[in-house]
Amino acid sequence: MKELGIGIIGTGFMGKAHAFAYRAALAAFPDIPVPRLEMIADVDAASAAKAAHQYGFARSSGNWKDMIADPKIDVISITTPNTLHKDMALAAIAAGKHVHCEKPLSPSLGESLEMVEAAEKRGVNTQVGFNYIKNPLLKLAREMVEAGELGEITGFRGIHAEDYMHDPEGPWTWRIDPSGGPGVIADLGSHIIGMARFLLGEIAEVSADVRTVVKSRPVARGAAERKDVLVDDVARILVNFGRGCGGTIEANWIATGRKMQLGFELTGAKGSLVFTQERLNELLFYKAGQDPRTSGYTKIEAGPQHYPYGQFCVAGGHELGFNDLKTIEMGEFLSAIGKGQTSGPGFREAYEIQKVVEAAIDSSKARNWVKVA
Amino acid sequence: MKELGIGIIGTGFMGKAHAFAYRAALAAFPDIPVPRLEMIADVDAASAAKAAHQYGFARSSGNWKDMIADPKIDVISITTPNTLHKDMALAAIAAGKHVHCEKPLSPSLGESLEMVEAAEKRGVNTQVGFNYIKNPLLKLAREMVEAGELGEITGFRGIHAEDYMHDPEGPWTWRIDPSGGPGVIADLGSHIIGMARFLLGEIAEVSADVRTVVKSRPVARGAAERKDVLVDDVARILVNFGRGCGGTIEANWIATGRKMQLGFELTGAKGSLVFTQERLNELLFYKAGQDPRTSGYTKIEAGPQHYPYGQFCVAGGHELGFNDLKTIEMGEFLSAIGKGQTSGPGFREAYEIQKVVEAAIDSSKARNWVKVA
Amino acid sequence: MKELGIGIIGTGFMGKAHAFAYRAALAAFPDIPVPRLEMIADVDAASAAKAAHQYGFARSSGNWKDMIADPKIDVISITTPNTLHKDMALAAIAAGKHVHCEKPLSPSLGESLEMVEAAEKRGVNTQVGFNYIKNPLLKLAREMVEAGELGEITGFRGIHAEDYMHDPEGPWTWRIDPSGGPGVIADLGSHIIGMARFLLGEIAEVSADVRTVVKSRPVARGAAERKDVLVDDVARILVNFGRGCGGTIEANWIATGRKMQLGFELTGAKGSLVFTQERLNELLFYKAGQDPRTSGYTKIEAGPQHYPYGQFCVAGGHELGFNDLKTIEMGEFLSAIGKGQTSGPGFREAYEIQKVVEAAIDSSKARNWVKVA
Amino acid sequence: MKELGIGIIGTGFMGKAHAFAYRAALAAFPDIPVPRLEMIADVDAASAAKAAHQYGFARSSGNWKDMIADPKIDVISITTPNTLHKDMALAAIAAGKHVHCEKPLSPSLGESLEMVEAAEKRGVNTQVGFNYIKNPLLKLAREMVEAGELGEITGFRGIHAEDYMHDPEGPWTWRIDPSGGPGVIADLGSHIIGMARFLLGEIAEVSADVRTVVKSRPVARGAAERKDVLVDDVARILVNFGRGCGGTIEANWIATGRKMQLGFELTGAKGSLVFTQERLNELLFYKAGQDPRTSGYTKIEAGPQHYPYGQFCVAGGHELGFNDLKTIEMGEFLSAIGKGQTSGPGFREAYEIQKVVEAAIDSSKARNWVKVA
Repeated sequence: MKELGIGIIGTGFMGKAHAFAYRAALAAFPDIPVPRLEMIADVDAASAAKAAHQYGFARSSGNWKDMIADPKIDVISITTPNTLHKDMALAAIAAGKHVHCEKPLSPSLGESLEMVEAAEKRGVNTQVGFNYIKNPLLKLAREMVEAGELGEITGFRGIHAEDYMHDPEGPWTWRIDPSGGPGVIADLGSHIIGMARFLLGEIAEVSADVRTVVKSRPVARGAAERKDVLVDDVARILVNFGRGCGGTIEANWIATGRKMQLGFELTGAKGSLVFTQERLNELLFYKAGQDPRTSGYTKIEAGPQHYPYGQFCVAGGHELGFNDLKTIEMGEFLSAIGKGQTSGPGFREAYEIQKVVEAAIDSSKARNWVKVA
Repeated sequence: MKELGIGIIGTGFMGKAHAFAYRAALAAFPDIPVPRLEMIADVDAASAAKAAHQYGFARSSGNWKDMIADPKIDVISITTPNTLHKDMALAAIAAGKHVHCEKPLSPSLGESLEMVEAAEKRGVNTQVGFNYIKNPLLKLAREMVEAGELGEITGFRGIHAEDYMHDPEGPWTWRIDPSGGPGVIADLGSHIIGMARFLLGEIAEVSADVRTVVKSRPVARGAAERKDVLVDDVARILVNFGRGCGGTIEANWIATGRKMQLGFELTGAKGSLVFTQERLNELLFYKAGQDPRTSGYTKIEAGPQHYPYGQFCVAGGHELGFNDLKTIEMGEFLSAIGKGQTSGPGFREAYEIQKVVEAAIDSSKARNWVKVA
Repeated sequence: MKELGIGIIGTGFMGKAHAFAYRAALAAFPDIPVPRLEMIADVDAASAAKAAHQYGFARSSGNWKDMIADPKIDVISITTPNTLHKDMALAAIAAGKHVHCEKPLSPSLGESLEMVEAAEKRGVNTQVGFNYIKNPLLKLAREMVEAGELGEITGFRGIHAEDYMHDPEGPWTWRIDPSGGPGVIADLGSHIIGMARFLLGEIAEVSADVRTVVKSRPVARGAAERKDVLVDDVARILVNFGRGCGGTIEANWIATGRKMQLGFELTGAKGSLVFTQERLNELLFYKAGQDPRTSGYTKIEAGPQHYPYGQFCVAGGHELGFNDLKTIEMGEFLSAIGKGQTSGPGFREAYEIQKVVEAAIDSSKARNWVKVA
Repeated sequence: MKELGIGIIGTGFMGKAHAFAYRAALAAFPDIPVPRLEMIADVDAASAAKAAHQYGFARSSGNWKDMIADPKIDVISITTPNTLHKDMALAAIAAGKHVHCEKPLSPSLGESLEMVEAAEKRGVNTQVGFNYIKNPLLKLAREMVEAGELGEITGFRGIHAEDYMHDPEGPWTWRIDPSGGPGVIADLGSHIIGMARFLLGEIAEVSADVRTVVKSRPVARGAAERKDVLVDDVARILVNFGRGCGGTIEANWIATGRKMQLGFELTGAKGSLVFTQERLNELLFYKAGQDPRTSGYTKIEAGPQHYPYGQFCVAGGHELGFNDLKTIEMGEFLSAIGKGQTSGPGFREAYEIQKVVEAAIDSSKARNWVKVA
């Protein structure tokens, strides 16, 4: 079986998630190329060393460029802040590495396109961290849409709302530095836009209200000095899908109380689906035309009948968690590399998602509908 | 105690609901003027007679004008199709009757304004059937907003979705005859717009997508001949409230599977509320700043601590139903008449709601934001 | 159409519920004998007079015996404390009145049997206030059991838990005066035992733990003086149904947080049902043998397809409330009287339920299984 | 940092779960001894070899005794059928290995006691696979009980119901071979009994109904020949905890529709908790004495404030899955070994749980209460 040498840049939230996933991928997916855990890099060499030990990687470095030069490394995961993605990705691509990059690709469409074209030209495999759509129940949802089990699709209502920025006295952070690109519409919005595209295909047109609600924040918790907030806190978007149906999408990081309200209600002429990541092992399904006495929404619970749940657990009802979704993501990425196929969502799809983000921002400024170019 | 003679025009779904409510109102609200059940009218005199017997009204008539002329009748409920409301209401007002009218007031803004002005000029009391906001838990929600318990309000997501028109082969009906005015945006949309206004006040501006999804319907179930549908099936609206916050509102009568998805998520800097009429005795409340170890959404169950629940049942957990909400509506209306006060929502408020409906339709045509005049 | 003169004894919680129900019964059920609201009696004549006015009864009295002697009264509802039921019922029966009595019939099996036999001998119609089983969804549940849609029944887990006695410092009240009979096992337990019998038939045998948890209570809120509690706070019962399957039943009035946890999980070889009165318009149904990809528990929402929901509202999703269940109860009672049939549960069934209660108490004392005689 | 060489016997459902967990343990818990993945054994050497490759273990064997003799192995996980546990465990203990064994320890109390005593005598660390109590929210629940946040505990209702044996035509399997010990009461019952003990301590006394519902099964799917079933399908148990409160426990593997109904409702004088493994990242908490207007059950969602959730993910709402619970289990086991402390539940606790199982079976035969010796 072929092996693939793995490197991870970054040791934060996502660096750890990638490490968990690479460690578990082969156990879940026996037929993928064997991930050989080679190196972890972090600007703080001590953190990198600690992480390499903890996550079982052979080596560590304080300089991500060591990874680029290393012939034993075939795949690089980029989990650093957005503004750093491009240089790292371009260097990795130039060296012929396959690249996994956390979303969004970069702060601007132009830079992202540069990344897409570099990867396509060099012919490396890419993946971007839209982990939530790796859920077996979302694969089921997409299959149902594609098989026509819901009839013609007539509406989509998608939301990704959390509350980590809800407190107006919460301090200014890197997360809202405009050099990193837009606010919530890129951070959470890209997940729900990606989910909408995964399920229903292309979004053709948008009309959006993208706004900053908390106009300024203290420079530190409790500080008197405040700094203006220049990025958006909430984005509400009317959408037209290329397939003809309409919908709404909301991204919101001031949704007090919500920790992971990422979900949708998807309606078709013959049925509908309701999902929320708050209960990621459940999918509600309504099928029209059944006995009215006993029909209603059926709560589908994830089980081994929903591939690849069974790769993790042979019995239903045991529940997958977030890290398992990340393992599916990495498993599929490594599998695609092994087969020389595209898994996805790759850089191109991430770029398409970002185009919707940008169109929404443009629409909000222009206060009318904008076509997604 | 003063008495009020009651007349109802119409014996269908809403006629019956009004009858139930007038019959129960005094039992629930001992201090209101005593409703004396005088007459039921219906274009079909036999139906009227049957209804009068069944609902305990003293007399019946096949001609609603008999009611207008009757000095023993003080209050008239209009539950007929929309197109008939205006003439009935104007006649009743001219005769000095207090008028309850089912929503929407009329098919067009101009006619509705005529009704508003007639009522205000004549000084009669009016009420319009926005029954869902009579829920004790919605009174609580409004109180919490007004008392600042949720902090500054930062978002509203409102929906009224049902599925009675979801089947593309469902036949053309009076409900979609354009002479009755717009489609779902008036039928269901007015409820959720009214609820939004009840909770958060004026809607200043809208940007909407109001569309017909099922373009034609068979003239009868199974018929080959089809007739074009000229009214909307779904309306998706971006809104700006006068108070400054944004939100979305959706009205949808092709939402396969939904029987009564009327609800909202209302977010403030210090807390949030979630409600759906599908579980009308529950209100979810999140309060920020609590012990993170044990905080989360609290499911408030309706009980006697939420006035006027206790007028129906002295113990919590027993649950109010739709007809109880209608009883609250009538109780409040009769109480307001007795005190010479305004209860509401009256004709003026119904007109304000209709203005939002019209602005949304205009916006959808113009494809940009429209101010609610 | 025949008329029936109605009298109600008692003006408290249940007196009011009966009044609401008699007022609404004909509106919901057009074919029943017309209830003529004749008299309300209460030991406090002023309360009786006030109630008669408020609930629309023709007359009132401070002496319930006035009702017995009154030839215009055909039906008497007894809503007074348990200890008073027997004398009232026996007098009413002797006078040939049909009798509705709130549960439990009396504090002791012997007295209850006396009531049963008197009614049967005199040939009057009786009903006892087991209102929760009047829910259209419980009718559906029973039909499904009887039609074999769940296969052979293999288990029942029934609960009626509330928390009105949960506070150990809550004062001693009439509710726990042992002269009124047992504690929670009679008060709430009779509801869930009745529901179990309604669904699955006879309970043959029980093994129970019936216990007092709060051993003493202050004589008044905050008082230093305490009085021993002699009745049970919790009853946990293993049951064997006559049909062969086993189950458990719990009655609990110290279930902190629960306002109306009355429900069950009923399992059969081919399907199962889950119900809780906390969401009385919903019934969960699992049907075995369906496509595993999309199967799961289906949430059935009450609608007009579930008789007699449609008598109250022609559209699904609007929800019945507690008072509607009481109206169904009274409608069925009056209908049965009109047809000279038995509706139920009548005195005999209430007595059978009480036998289960007594067997459980005996079992708890003997610490072994006891047959329900 | 100390290392511990790990061996796993068995490559089925639990063998894989252990492998996932050992692979992830250090990434989640940086301070534990480093697990060195040494060997996987299976009676089928090819399976063992494949598993070793897939799960990243250095070596494999077709003979578990190879592990016993191997000085590089410090910890052995036994995931084979129950009947094999004892010999394996005794051999491992004799060789001074620390032992993790899946539950139940053995088919009989006597054999289990032998295992307990051997481990205690030899001084090795033991753990038994009661994984569900490793949930951070169950740690919270236990802390709340112990801190008195729920007041005096007044009741417990525990259930573990699944449906893998619900079909009466499902064939006879090893799972119901009586040589493996009791049926559901050992298989699922031990989980909920263990959870009850984890939360509330010792169970002093039981009165149970333990029964076989499906009396015979075909020897193979569709076969005409049937074989008698000698083990239990459902166990319903009244319990008395040593602390004084009562409760019920049910174990059921014919609960049609249930995939993982493992949970409880735990009631105290000042609050209550509700949990089900079907939604393992949620815990419902009711706190008495709050503002009645806004109080109710609060849904606590697992987050980093609930240790050790944060070891897996720094943000709330992302959800742990079953394999994460298993990782916690292994992390705690290795940590305990490193510190020379007891983690638990170890063999002794598993034996105590089995004593409750046996007492329940005895009680069911004797049809009365039985003290847990």
